[in-house]
Amino acid sequence: MSLLDLLFGPPLASDEEREERVGLAAGIPIFGLDALSSAAYGPEAALTLLIPLGAAGITYIFPISISIVILLGIVYFSYRQTIDAYPGGGGSYTVATENLGTGAGLLAAAALMIDYVLTAAVGISSGVGALISAVPWLQPHTVTLCLGILVILTVVNLRGVRESGGVFMVPTYVFIGSVLVVIGVGVAKTILSGGHPVPVVVPPPALVASASLSLWLIVKAFSSGCTAMTGVEAVSNGVKAFKEPSSQEAKRTLTVIIAILAIMLAGIAYLVRVYGIAATDPGSPAYQSLLSMLIAAVMGKGWFYWVSIGSILLVLSLSANTAFADFPRLCRAIAQNGYLPYSFSLRGRRLVFSQGVYVLAFLSALLLVVFGGVTDRLIPLYAVGAFLAFTLSQAGMVQHWRRQGGKEAGHSMIVNAVGAAATGITVVVVLVAKFVEGAWITVLLIPILILAMVSVKRHFKTVKAEIADSQPLKFEMIREPLIVVPVDRWSRIVERGLRFAMSLSGEVKAVHIDCGEEEADSICKSWSEMVERPAMRAGRVPPELVRIESPYRFVITPLVDYALELSEKNPDRMVAVVVPELVERHWYHYPLHNQRAQALKALLLVKGNQRVVTMNVPWYLKG
Amino acid sequence: MSLLDLLFGPPLASDEEREERVGLAAGIPIFGLDALSSAAYGPEAALTLLIPLGAAGITYIFPISISIVILLGIVYFSYRQTIDAYPGGGGSYTVATENLGTGAGLLAAAALMIDYVLTAAVGISSGVGALISAVPWLQPHTVTLCLGILVILTVVNLRGVRESGGVFMVPTYVFIGSVLVVIGVGVAKTILSGGHPVPVVVPPPALVASASLSLWLIVKAFSSGCTAMTGVEAVSNGVKAFKEPSSQEAKRTLTVIIAILAIMLAGIAYLVRVYGIAATDPGSPAYQSLLSMLIAAVMGKGWFYWVSIGSILLVLSLSANTAFADFPRLCRAIAQNGYLPYSFSLRGRRLVFSQGVYVLAFLSALLLVVFGGVTDRLIPLYAVGAFLAFTLSQAGMVQHWRRQGGKEAGHSMIVNAVGAAATGITVVVVLVAKFVEGAWITVLLIPILILAMVSVKRHFKTVKAEIADSQPLKFEMIREPLIVVPVDRWSRIVERGLRFAMSLSGEVKAVHIDCGEEEADSICKSWSEMVERPAMRAGRVPPELVRIESPYRFVITPLVDYALELSEKNPDRMVAVVVPELVERHWYHYPLHNQRAQALKALLLVKGNQRVVTMNVPWYLKG
Repeated sequence: MSLLDLLFGPPLASDEEREERVGLAAGIPIFGLDALSSAAYGPEAALTLLIPLGAAGITYIFPISISIVILLGIVYFSYRQTIDAYPGGGGSYTVATENLGTGAGLLAAAALMIDYVLTAAVGISSGVGALISAVPWLQPHTVTLCLGILVILTVVNLRGVRESGGVFMVPTYVFIGSVLVVIGVGVAKTILSGGHPVPVVVPPPALVASASLSLWLIVKAFSSGCTAMTGVEAVSNGVKAFKEPSSQEAKRTLTVIIAILAIMLAGIAYLVRVYGIAATDPGSPAYQSLLSMLIAAVMGKGWFYWVSIGSILLVLSLSANTAFADFPRLCRAIAQNGYLPYSFSLRGRRLVFSQGVYVLAFLSALLLVVFGGVTDRLIPLYAVGAFLAFTLSQAGMVQHWRRQGGKEAGHSMIVNAVGAAATGITVVVVLVAKFVEGAWITVLLIPILILAMVSVKRHFKTVKAEIADSQPLKFEMIREPLIVVPVDRWSRIVERGLRFAMSLSGEVKAVHIDCGEEEADSICKSWSEMVERPAMRAGRVPPELVRIESPYRFVITPLVDYALELSEKNPDRMVAVVVPELVERHWYHYPLHNQRAQALKALLLVKGNQRVVTMNVPWYLKG
Repeated sequence: MSLLDLLFGPPLASDEEREERVGLAAGIPIFGLDALSSAAYGPEAALTLLIPLGAAGITYIFPISISIVILLGIVYFSYRQTIDAYPGGGGSYTVATENLGTGAGLLAAAALMIDYVLTAAVGISSGVGALISAVPWLQPHTVTLCLGILVILTVVNLRGVRESGGVFMVPTYVFIGSVLVVIGVGVAKTILSGGHPVPVVVPPPALVASASLSLWLIVKAFSSGCTAMTGVEAVSNGVKAFKEPSSQEAKRTLTVIIAILAIMLAGIAYLVRVYGIAATDPGSPAYQSLLSMLIAAVMGKGWFYWVSIGSILLVLSLSANTAFADFPRLCRAIAQNGYLPYSFSLRGRRLVFSQGVYVLAFLSALLLVVFGGVTDRLIPLYAVGAFLAFTLSQAGMVQHWRRQGGKEAGHSMIVNAVGAAATGITVVVVLVAKFVEGAWITVLLIPILILAMVSVKRHFKTVKAEIADSQPLKFEMIREPLIVVPVDRWSRIVERGLRFAMSLSGEVKAVHIDCGEEEADSICKSWSEMVERPAMRAGRVPPELVRIESPYRFVITPLVDYALELSEKNPDRMVAVVVPELVERHWYHYPLHNQRAQALKALLLVKGNQRVVTMNVPWYLKG
């Protein structure tokens, strides 16, 4: 157990739970890392699509970013209301289920599950992508690096939520601080220079325009930019993880996160325009990230540049942690409604919903391996799920207020209705703009997931009905079982098996399988001397020796067949098969003994019925 | 079972055994394939080492081959005597053990085991090597092809010995026939042309000499040529597989095999010299096999050439079959002396010693994968084992005759002493000549194998002593066990578990682990209504409800600890833990249920003691 303790910390008792909750300072890194780190790739993803417009494209990034910030504001007000209405936590899934019914809830659940897995995968892959841009010789190890970071995240999260907040606090605040400093300094320089600041390091010139402005291009850029908004739902999903008063603390945290994100998005877009920074072609040798060019232009390539870039690297990798904080909670909520196995709702040794952490780690690893750890291939799958969940959540809230009625509820309803409309339109836009590039995978996975969840629910309902029992324990008709003991040669193991069998029942059958090998007869010859005569002396009924010929030298099958036949002939009795098992002290002795006990138990389980029981009598080897 | 039947044939009863024996016609392919196919690579291996001598090297192949044929003759007479003295079969291992003691026997066993594995690997790899020379685009799939052939051989051999003889008969006789025709025609042409036949297809000229003649070179060529003798021991090892009178039949088979092999080796060497055929550089693009050049020179490249080459390809791959016929028999002999697990001496469903077949297949696969299926890398490991076994066998026979005494025995002793001396010298020569190239691996493996076999014997001796029991069954002091039944919520599964427990013993403990989850109390609340009151009405003692708090939410560990504690407090009682297990009808339901039953059983086995028994009460889901 000491290795487990070392890796994951000592187990936490159930009543230590309250202490694991977080406040504003720890809440921002835990629930905001994903949303905030999006600033490092969202604007760049939009700007990249404007490359064909050449230098003219830079002009459009500001209006696109502003429309994203406005959308962000709408979503913010909607989620504030959700936190108030659902202090128990529960994001889109709970809200959609309670207000729009099971179907909508499952749709939201499926969308969110996909989105969290992508959050983890994209966070890690873009972090590693930044790292390998800086250290190119690591490039061939991309997938290994991704999986390494994934393992670290998994371990940290299995240790529990507060400690993971501690790990991520420093890089998050360094990241926020440096981006805000860049924006502040950049804006100041712009004002002082009358709107035309001189870059400290001049960014590479924009490529020559190869396309003319079209609405389709702007829509695609907007859709890619929307990845900057993923992760905003995390806080409302995790209200219960906050210190009391949880709702207040959660709303404060959400406000701060959204405010910082809005400032970042608007600030970056503004400075990109005034400094005239165009995106470079991703994947080409000339590639440089947008933030890297911006920081260098405003601050130069001194120590500040390197600290900022370092924090971006860390924060991108760690943004995956938002998914680790929230995916297990989502699974728990689904499991409590019966759509996922019950084990998802159990807390592990460190008060974490461990099962969800395992599943998320496995699925992200799968995505990273399949897509080779390349962010570009993952991005088109992203965002659809998030915006679908936003929409369902807002629509659910509209229904919530309508049911409540009253003037104040009417006001709230309008806020959420605007949110629902805005995010709903965005879903359609993102879906159309990114369908061919990969959104179709998400569209395909959602119904599959829903079907799986419905099947799980149905299965557990069947099982529950099958084992449900409203009758008290019946004490009538309890009869001794018939006991079958396989015997080969006379040994202490056989003797123990027989004695144990006799302690349970008066009817014991000692079964010998005769394969025609030389020493086959030994137990049959010694039976009278070793068993029958001492039984007579003790005045007891001896176990009956049953000898079965096995011309094909099978041992297991005739035994199982005999037990099943016995159970068929005695429909009112249980049949118990005693399986003596040699337990090796050393693992390297394992292949020396034939594993007939294992095979016998397995075959009995497969071919058996409710009335056939196996009893494992171990014999521990001393040598 | 129908898939098994299709692959391996229906099971054979033990009394069908006699019918599976072979005569001369089937015995040659089964026990001679390895020895005979060596003619396809032995002379070439020797000639390859003479390449540095240029055209002059060709002259030396004839004396080298003749000395190998003489050695073969000596070994032949020695093994005839072995077959007579050991009609029960048993090659070097049996002879060495019985006459020279256990140590020598184990040395022979280890040497033979290594040699058989190499026989299988080299046979397959050289067959595939020939195939990929003919069809170069298969070259990247070398290892896959090797493993494919290995799988086919394994399946055929698991079907049983007679059918495998049938499969191999045609290619073997085509191979023998075509090589003998080539030799006959070649010799006739030589005589008719006065010693200087004109090649139909002129072989490539010998390379320019790059070294001068040295004894070391001749010794190395001889050592490589000795691989032509591997496999000769197979017949004497398998005497029992022959039709009655087994010894006569085996000797006839051995005579024919050795005679054909001698004619082939001498004939090939003679023709190589008169036709002036030099070996080509293996691995180079100009490579052509010796037999290919020889057949083309004598017969031209017509249909006869292609039929011969086809049979060589097949026979080389199939020569591995000798190992499959003999390795399992060797393992059985070793197992009967206790140096390998008993299961090696059991016949499988088709009267084959299946375990040996599996082990051989696994080890050959390992060799083929590690050495990339390249014969050149395997050859230096080869032959040491075979000649070491020859030597031990002959030395054992010397001792055998000495013990027997008398004049006839004296004569026989001399024959075997000459054999022992000749093969003993060859072992030293081969070892020295090939040590650096790979014989060291064999030298390293032999003591490891011996150590392993000695350890196996010691382990089984300990176990046997531990479980040996000369006392009759004791009927005193048989007491009911204490029974532990884990209970969570009231259900039919729990009810069945309790009823079953009560059928076995009057002392039943129903243990509830309380993890502080919400529905935790349900069974404790309903206990009086569901169990205690009905018990009172029936006038019986109800099971005792034991409630264990588990603040860290572990379920399995507290249960196991409780059972162990109970067993400690009652040193004269058995403790039986009833494990109710849900058996899923569909495999895809398996991950839906937490596998606590499995975990509980495993932990009980690991932490338990002789007095703790687990009872598996299955509940078969209908849904």
